Amino acid sequence: MVKKMLISMSALLVLFPAMAFAEDPSGATLNMGLNALWVMLAAVLVLLMQGGFILLETGSTRMKNAGHVAGKTIFTVGLCSLIYWAFGYGIAFGGSGNDFFGWGDFFFDPAKTSVDNGLPTTIFFLFQLAFAAVSLSIAWGGFAERAKLSVYLIFTILFTALIYPVVAHWIWGGGFLAQDGAQDFAGSTVVHLTGALAALAGTILLKPRIGKFNKDGSANEILGHNQVFTALSVLILWVGWFGFNAGSTVAIGDGFFGFVAFNTQLGAAGGAVAALLISWAVLGKADIGTTLNGALAGLVAITASCAFVDPWAAVVIGLVAGVLVFYSVRFFEKMKIDDPIYALSVHGAAGIWGTLANGIFATEELASKVGVGQGGLIDTGNWHQLWVQFESVVICGVFVLAASFILLGIMKAVMGLRVTEEQEIAGLDLSEHGNYGYPEQLKKPSGQNIQA
Amino acid sequence: MVKKMLISMSALLVLFPAMAFAEDPSGATLNMGLNALWVMLAAVLVLLMQGGFILLETGSTRMKNAGHVAGKTIFTVGLCSLIYWAFGYGIAFGGSGNDFFGWGDFFFDPAKTSVDNGLPTTIFFLFQLAFAAVSLSIAWGGFAERAKLSVYLIFTILFTALIYPVVAHWIWGGGFLAQDGAQDFAGSTVVHLTGALAALAGTILLKPRIGKFNKDGSANEILGHNQVFTALSVLILWVGWFGFNAGSTVAIGDGFFGFVAFNTQLGAAGGAVAALLISWAVLGKADIGTTLNGALAGLVAITASCAFVDPWAAVVIGLVAGVLVFYSVRFFEKMKIDDPIYALSVHGAAGIWGTLANGIFATEELASKVGVGQGGLIDTGNWHQLWVQFESVVICGVFVLAASFILLGIMKAVMGLRVTEEQEIAGLDLSEHGNYGYPEQLKKPSGQNIQA
Amino acid sequence: MVKKMLISMSALLVLFPAMAFAEDPSGATLNMGLNALWVMLAAVLVLLMQGGFILLETGSTRMKNAGHVAGKTIFTVGLCSLIYWAFGYGIAFGGSGNDFFGWGDFFFDPAKTSVDNGLPTTIFFLFQLAFAAVSLSIAWGGFAERAKLSVYLIFTILFTALIYPVVAHWIWGGGFLAQDGAQDFAGSTVVHLTGALAALAGTILLKPRIGKFNKDGSANEILGHNQVFTALSVLILWVGWFGFNAGSTVAIGDGFFGFVAFNTQLGAAGGAVAALLISWAVLGKADIGTTLNGALAGLVAITASCAFVDPWAAVVIGLVAGVLVFYSVRFFEKMKIDDPIYALSVHGAAGIWGTLANGIFATEELASKVGVGQGGLIDTGNWHQLWVQFESVVICGVFVLAASFILLGIMKAVMGLRVTEEQEIAGLDLSEHGNYGYPEQLKKPSGQNIQA
Repeated sequence: MVKKMLISMSALLVLFPAMAFAEDPSGATLNMGLNALWVMLAAVLVLLMQGGFILLETGSTRMKNAGHVAGKTIFTVGLCSLIYWAFGYGIAFGGSGNDFFGWGDFFFDPAKTSVDNGLPTTIFFLFQLAFAAVSLSIAWGGFAERAKLSVYLIFTILFTALIYPVVAHWIWGGGFLAQDGAQDFAGSTVVHLTGALAALAGTILLKPRIGKFNKDGSANEILGHNQVFTALSVLILWVGWFGFNAGSTVAIGDGFFGFVAFNTQLGAAGGAVAALLISWAVLGKADIGTTLNGALAGLVAITASCAFVDPWAAVVIGLVAGVLVFYSVRFFEKMKIDDPIYALSVHGAAGIWGTLANGIFATEELASKVGVGQGGLIDTGNWHQLWVQFESVVICGVFVLAASFILLGIMKAVMGLRVTEEQEIAGLDLSEHGNYGYPEQLKKPSGQNIQA
Repeated sequence: MVKKMLISMSALLVLFPAMAFAEDPSGATLNMGLNALWVMLAAVLVLLMQGGFILLETGSTRMKNAGHVAGKTIFTVGLCSLIYWAFGYGIAFGGSGNDFFGWGDFFFDPAKTSVDNGLPTTIFFLFQLAFAAVSLSIAWGGFAERAKLSVYLIFTILFTALIYPVVAHWIWGGGFLAQDGAQDFAGSTVVHLTGALAALAGTILLKPRIGKFNKDGSANEILGHNQVFTALSVLILWVGWFGFNAGSTVAIGDGFFGFVAFNTQLGAAGGAVAALLISWAVLGKADIGTTLNGALAGLVAITASCAFVDPWAAVVIGLVAGVLVFYSVRFFEKMKIDDPIYALSVHGAAGIWGTLANGIFATEELASKVGVGQGGLIDTGNWHQLWVQFESVVICGVFVLAASFILLGIMKAVMGLRVTEEQEIAGLDLSEHGNYGYPEQLKKPSGQNIQA
Repeated sequence: MVKKMLISMSALLVLFPAMAFAEDPSGATLNMGLNALWVMLAAVLVLLMQGGFILLETGSTRMKNAGHVAGKTIFTVGLCSLIYWAFGYGIAFGGSGNDFFGWGDFFFDPAKTSVDNGLPTTIFFLFQLAFAAVSLSIAWGGFAERAKLSVYLIFTILFTALIYPVVAHWIWGGGFLAQDGAQDFAGSTVVHLTGALAALAGTILLKPRIGKFNKDGSANEILGHNQVFTALSVLILWVGWFGFNAGSTVAIGDGFFGFVAFNTQLGAAGGAVAALLISWAVLGKADIGTTLNGALAGLVAITASCAFVDPWAAVVIGLVAGVLVFYSVRFFEKMKIDDPIYALSVHGAAGIWGTLANGIFATEELASKVGVGQGGLIDTGNWHQLWVQFESVVICGVFVLAASFILLGIMKAVMGLRVTEEQEIAGLDLSEHGNYGYPEQLKKPSGQNIQA
């Protein structure tokens, strides 16, 4: 146990000689390093949220589709990465664009250590890519248990290249809504509402799952198969959300990212508690699914506001989101819209609420700290910011819904969106992939003829 | 693939204009930034441990309770967050208190970028909140498979506001045990023993699960339903423990947190190896559950000592914990105490061992580095520190056990703690929430009448 | 909500008084702190990959072995930690060694805050240990569903002390391949190929699982029991890989680690997409397992090259890996080699491809930035680096395969490697541990006599 210092010194020196850096770097270099490290880890946390989506989506659906639902996430995240690299990033942030879309930086190939505004561009890219992939995974909520695999392939390309980056450009890339002062710190609108409205277009065009609605219009509950998966998914998403929200500072600076994280925790907590209590009060049973949706709705809602509001307002935003998600689920069911993963309520309704909440609760102090928009109704008595928020929700909403309907509508006409009734009943694991994801629990019917 | 630098510069500039910070910050600001980043990520790792608890608790219990067990974690973490924000933090760390409890900082509302001793207060809060939630999740081990949902609601409030923060104040908040020099670096006593003794009070007042003990006093093994969940839970907890232990330095400084992590790994490893070997030697079968408990016990035991002992001692502390947990489980079973998740052994017995181990293995060098207490028996030949450790275990233990018994006793008298026999047999998924967590594997008995 | 600043200041001050550091540390100290934080978190991410292996290995095997497969990971990671601490680290990096193995630093006991080349040695140790544990977990792929538990115990010791650290020394510890300029940034060869070839030796000596091959030589598909586990495992491994690859810079410096992460994402994406498409094209069904293997193969392949190639090359390396893994799986099946977790294809074939790819795609710019070897065939027109890469694959491959065959061969002669046929059919959960991992889904046959 002797001779240690000198020994591993030589070890490290030989590992990658040129990786040894200046011994006393400047404050600016160290500041860049801090930002780089934080946003890198935030990107990792946001990518980890895909693990949450795998569990959320499989846990909320049936065993016969589990392998398909889980496996398609890995595929679509991969494809989304390539498409965002080739096209999406350039549409969102390419510098030769205009107020409506960016242009340039296609097949993104930055200088190896290019730094921009205190952050390596490679890491900014990874962080933005992770957001695009979250929005896409939200959209899949409307496609679950009946869309063809080829739909996932084509729509990943269209959504990642043409829909998501346009909205991102408007609000985060210097587009016309940014210039209007629209406040959406980490993406209640850009990421969550966008994903939810693509899900809405998808579920309307696909039509409800077999058995979801009866001929008399009443709805049946199609229970997901594994609540351990869904509860764990919520925890993973919650944890990843610290990268999502607090990482959106894209800087360490004076430690303000800690305040953003603090508000995030309060919003999530408010959502979980309110949802459990409202379901208990109304149904007489504390519904687990509602509780889980409440935590997520709290997170979605606080996403826009986390850098703009005081802690008490974060609690209120979360509590309202928890109640809202309970009634929103009922509303969509009454509208005979099938929402298997509750994307429309959790990401849509709560995304709208979160974006509007900025116009109500944002404080002047924080709006000027972040440098976007102004204080909201309560702090300033001025309706202006609420109007800007409303406007941004409507404009983004109309665009995403229209674009999704048109693109999916064309796909429906050309290739069809939905598997056959026989395939849907057998399950997508068999029909799209040839094997059950749980082959020991669901025995393959011998002699059954499944068309690809 | 051209024009990239200038392009994304503009992109970043427009994202959040005011987030651009001074180009060449001072060393003090950068130091704060490093600490902030580390403790933020440590808090995220400790919150991730709740994913471990979801899997540990569901994997160790039966399928009919899985949705309840998993879902209640999301709810109680949310409620714990609100209560700790409103009350618990102020009792633990509020500055107007005394040697026995803190006072102030209720409904915690720090200045947005307040920094204290080199760390943003928002991040210190999140880190401490994550610890409180871990202690609470440990306590649930004693309530599993038979407590009413309303018990989880009420006891979360009481534990988070009145029990946990008092012990935290005594040892970490400048209370009388801190002044005595009690060494508990990351909470073998504050977090683990506290949780375990609340679990003990719970399980005694609730009485054993139906079928656990026979009329002749012999015990039946009620196997948990999923060892993949429990093994994965141990891995997640192990990973999260690096935030728990090494994060408790709350500073980067000279890199000492790496040493704390190093010891943590050795303690965990010792526990896993010793537990597998002792079960193999004694039972003739290498018991998986014992191995998993051993890894956790090693982690619990090294938690108090990780900053105070040499690496060889970390290995010894882990090995002893692994053997201890094997016999402790047997001991509680003989005492006819039902401990479904093994909280009493893993967090209780190993928590006591870990706290006492400081008094044996702490070195003078490290005690003065950390600045708490003094070297232990082996390094100094002096029994003083061991006595201080013993005293802190007894005092904290008596307080937590008494407070839990009294509060839960009142709850038992007023509202009852346990579901009916019929409900317990049907499972809490049906009785408390109306649906199985695994609805395709456990078919709801038609016509069965379950009271809420 | 008042008096906050002053209050929590005192709180922090009392927590660990001596943890308060200099207010204005030097640039060198802050630089060390940044590196320490990054590599610490990278080590945590690499340890998290064990959660991926738990899910990958259980998901790919049958229910009757699930508890065994999951639980043995916790045990072997623990044992590997102790053995690497006692012996492996000294063989890999001990400073009194030679070109073929290191010597010294056994029972590693560094000074508490020793820093070496800008990184605490404790953290360098943890990072290297996490790599050793990954290589070991890859090796287990060849042992699955039929090796005795005692084989896991003994081979963990031999692999961690004698096989893995020798290869690590050759390429990363200043050994003869490092001196030759072998490029393997994060271990396509050191970690992945080494693990895969130990798996190959294991599976050949163990012989195929009962029922894998028919008497006429044709193969049966033994489906794994849970594709949600395998898909989630891929996501966890993918996330952890950012620590694995980008962490291998072991420094923040100018932010180059972001570029390494960027390439890693592109390689993984290419693998996932190519594998799904090739299976769809060839089989008429998009095979989930192939897609998942493709993502992993892309990650394995880009591991050697992530710091040496341009982004377009990272995409190409990933795409080729995705196609390669599809055909490699078919190749091993034709060779009648049973590869339950596809370790030979995912980590072996893709590991070789990734190492060779450096010799093709490495740019002169990046080779001199990293400081190892030179540019590859495309950038320089020179075959030299490709030859060096080929040489390093062959030499490491021959060594690992020979050492594994000899050591496992001796174990086979002395103690036997495989459980009895009766035990294998009953499953290792029963035969090695006495209980099913899923006791509610697999009922223990009453009266069945299972020998330990």
